[in-house]
Amino acid sequence: MAGYKVRELAALVGGVVEGDGGRVITGVNGLAEAGPADVTFVANPRYAGAVKDTRAGAVIAGDDIAAEGKTFIRVAQPYLAFAQILTRFAPAPAVPREISDLAFIHATATLGKDVGVGPFAVIEEGAVIGDRASIGAGVYVGPGAAVGPDSLIYPHVALRERVRVGARCIIHLGTVVGSDGFGFATANDVHHKIPQVGTVVVEDDVEIGANCAIDRGTMGETRIGRGSKLDNLIQIAHNVHIGEGTLIAAQTGIAGSTRVGKYCVFAGQVGVVPHVTIGDRAILAAQAGVAKSVPPGETYFGCPARPIREAKRNEARISLLAKLYERVKELERKVEQREGGAGAPPGRE
Amino acid sequence: MAGYKVRELAALVGGVVEGDGGRVITGVNGLAEAGPADVTFVANPRYAGAVKDTRAGAVIAGDDIAAEGKTFIRVAQPYLAFAQILTRFAPAPAVPREISDLAFIHATATLGKDVGVGPFAVIEEGAVIGDRASIGAGVYVGPGAAVGPDSLIYPHVALRERVRVGARCIIHLGTVVGSDGFGFATANDVHHKIPQVGTVVVEDDVEIGANCAIDRGTMGETRIGRGSKLDNLIQIAHNVHIGEGTLIAAQTGIAGSTRVGKYCVFAGQVGVVPHVTIGDRAILAAQAGVAKSVPPGETYFGCPARPIREAKRNEARISLLAKLYERVKELERKVEQREGGAGAPPGRE
Amino acid sequence: MAGYKVRELAALVGGVVEGDGGRVITGVNGLAEAGPADVTFVANPRYAGAVKDTRAGAVIAGDDIAAEGKTFIRVAQPYLAFAQILTRFAPAPAVPREISDLAFIHATATLGKDVGVGPFAVIEEGAVIGDRASIGAGVYVGPGAAVGPDSLIYPHVALRERVRVGARCIIHLGTVVGSDGFGFATANDVHHKIPQVGTVVVEDDVEIGANCAIDRGTMGETRIGRGSKLDNLIQIAHNVHIGEGTLIAAQTGIAGSTRVGKYCVFAGQVGVVPHVTIGDRAILAAQAGVAKSVPPGETYFGCPARPIREAKRNEARISLLAKLYERVKELERKVEQREGGAGAPPGRE
Repeated sequence: MAGYKVRELAALVGGVVEGDGGRVITGVNGLAEAGPADVTFVANPRYAGAVKDTRAGAVIAGDDIAAEGKTFIRVAQPYLAFAQILTRFAPAPAVPREISDLAFIHATATLGKDVGVGPFAVIEEGAVIGDRASIGAGVYVGPGAAVGPDSLIYPHVALRERVRVGARCIIHLGTVVGSDGFGFATANDVHHKIPQVGTVVVEDDVEIGANCAIDRGTMGETRIGRGSKLDNLIQIAHNVHIGEGTLIAAQTGIAGSTRVGKYCVFAGQVGVVPHVTIGDRAILAAQAGVAKSVPPGETYFGCPARPIREAKRNEARISLLAKLYERVKELERKVEQREGGAGAPPGRE
Repeated sequence: MAGYKVRELAALVGGVVEGDGGRVITGVNGLAEAGPADVTFVANPRYAGAVKDTRAGAVIAGDDIAAEGKTFIRVAQPYLAFAQILTRFAPAPAVPREISDLAFIHATATLGKDVGVGPFAVIEEGAVIGDRASIGAGVYVGPGAAVGPDSLIYPHVALRERVRVGARCIIHLGTVVGSDGFGFATANDVHHKIPQVGTVVVEDDVEIGANCAIDRGTMGETRIGRGSKLDNLIQIAHNVHIGEGTLIAAQTGIAGSTRVGKYCVFAGQVGVVPHVTIGDRAILAAQAGVAKSVPPGETYFGCPARPIREAKRNEARISLLAKLYERVKELERKVEQREGGAGAPPGRE
Repeated sequence: MAGYKVRELAALVGGVVEGDGGRVITGVNGLAEAGPADVTFVANPRYAGAVKDTRAGAVIAGDDIAAEGKTFIRVAQPYLAFAQILTRFAPAPAVPREISDLAFIHATATLGKDVGVGPFAVIEEGAVIGDRASIGAGVYVGPGAAVGPDSLIYPHVALRERVRVGARCIIHLGTVVGSDGFGFATANDVHHKIPQVGTVVVEDDVEIGANCAIDRGTMGETRIGRGSKLDNLIQIAHNVHIGEGTLIAAQTGIAGSTRVGKYCVFAGQVGVVPHVTIGDRAILAAQAGVAKSVPPGETYFGCPARPIREAKRNEARISLLAKLYERVKELERKVEQREGGAGAPPGRE
């Protein structure tokens, strides 16, 4: 690993050095794990207290964090600066940079410049791989499928026929893009398959995690918008469209033809029914079960999902039910007592 | 793509032409996307209003849909007719129809007539592949496993030893059939593995989505009934039996030894505990958490899952809790007032 | 299959024969399915009644199970004894025991004694495979990754660079270990990737099910503790640490940096938020949505997850809401009546 002086790292991220700018840094690590040759970071004020105990050679932080005798790189966005510096220190991804003799590449497939292809990868008829893209071991690229320049397709990914993946995308291991949508026409208890003749378009700068399933459109396309990031084990059904820059955490499932806006955030294990719309910048809390459209900018929670304030109030009311039952019981006691009193002639109790 | 006259398509599906039966159709598309050479369909009256705006050359519909100047193919089951016509226009699935030199096929494996096997597929000792079946690139067919005639096994599927897949089945990419069930005998904090010596039987005409996991029986078998259709990322545990014609949406999990009836419908992300019974034609709503057996024909909802009417009523009661709290507060105020009044001598308030 | 006398099996598990110790047993089967040459078992008193109808040649059971004319092997832990006997009868796992000519093994990889490697497996630069380990067909072992002795890595598993798997581990088909954690630094609506430079450590005697995704640490490591057992389709995020002997059922997801204790039990489809702690021997019920740390030994239920008694009481209170509404209505009627009465002069109602 190369070494950088603290002042060089600060210059890289537009930061200001506070302390020893000449110290040499050779790695990056967490607040607790970092040693004297490591740079670390604090983005969350919750961890401010721990800074005084770190052994790190330098700390990337905003102006709100202080600790005597430590060297700081002061920046406005510590997490972003950390990402940039970590990128500098990170080893290059361990992906093929040459074409393995053990891959199967159809005679009609087109490979760009400096493409890498791992052993036992399959690139079918008419497929197109862009410049500097890397196709991992055992990847399947179906007939007529396309991978854009600088994309990384990790081992065991499968892209079915005619699927298009943009530039600078990353698709992690075992993910399937372009599987058939789940569509059947049922008559007399027989489920007749609806052929799934559409495709999937993954726009530029998208990252998709491991072991996901992204179904092709029944007709038309399923689309993942530019710069969106999907975690692992996610289900995207046929004809779903996802806007730009949306983040989706693991094990979420989005049912057929639903439209998801730009810059939404889905926490883990969210489910969304078919044929609804999730507005731009909406946030769906973990395990939310979304049965209706969600307006832009709203945060929804629960199953069925509701605006979070409403859901939290319902939660609170449920927690207070024990007391409510007691209050009603007490009321009944009092009213009963009086009832007795009222029914009886005055003075006879 | 071949062209058909509207009246030819109508004849194919037993429909009646209303309008221009001679118009030539060369494709199929959605109501909004279809052009003058496309046929489209309306199955849901909700979309009836959009028919007047379609540019489609012909519309498959029931008698309840009308629009001036449009050509209709009138049928009793528009969605089914659409499926049949789409099948006519759909390209053949992009699957191997020949045996790749790059596949590994054990000397003792038996391949039927016109079998296709993709590159880097592995067909182990004693495995049997039926006539016209297609085994995708990188598929693993374990020792003694069998695939029935006309089945399509997409790339990267794994069928472990002795698993049996019937005729005309479709298994999508990355799915695992026959993995070990999750069984341990715990003694003194050590979890001893229960060997999983059973198998999986996938009956005829079953379709299984991408990246599912179907465990083998501990002893005996796990069974997926004829004509059942499973979506993506589904977990079927050891010794589960699923009846005929059941539909299971994505990310559902069914725990060990549970019995699922015929023609059930599971929406997405449903969970079912072990050792219960789901009756024939039961419907489980999305994200239902089923902790007890479900009677035939019932619809269950929620976690823990309840009959849907009961669950919906509970939902409604929770939504009205704010008002209930107010009503109780008002009662307390009134009773308190009177209490004060009752405690005082008459006429002294 | 070899045959054993009942008394030989009893000796194997430290049990006592009651009945015909000389009977020859050649297999193991369920209570209902077992024939005269099979041994079966009853661990759950719920099934005690079914023992009188079994055709099994011998029944492994505790002292609390009785049935006239049956042969018993009496043991303290019937399920454990059953596991031990089943292991004796189970066929050896169908895994490679030799090195296939069709595998790709990098010149710098180190293979121990008696290693098996299936066709189309890839073992990259500097990877190390321990003695007697078996690497299935199409498995990917990345640069510098290590698999310990006696481990079974089933087909299509992927272990990315530098991942370490211990001794006697079992990893089922399609599982990914070492995929990138889901980490981005967002600035001006652009999600900048945080390089994921850490690794995964899978300790000894761990079993991981099919199609799971275990992400590598962002920095540092993700760790699965010794003897823990994970079911299928599980998501383990970056930097999660799981203690010894924890059991996790299918489709559970654990978010980044969460600490899970020893000997916990997660039922299916559980979700846990990032940066919390699950105490030793905690139990999380199916579909629990855990949003806060869980103390050791507690059982949590529901979403958001609560101590189970509290959650169950809330459930009960919700079920009784219909009656509560009636009680409040009745109170209102009574108070209203009295209100009317109270307002009027005495004796005038």
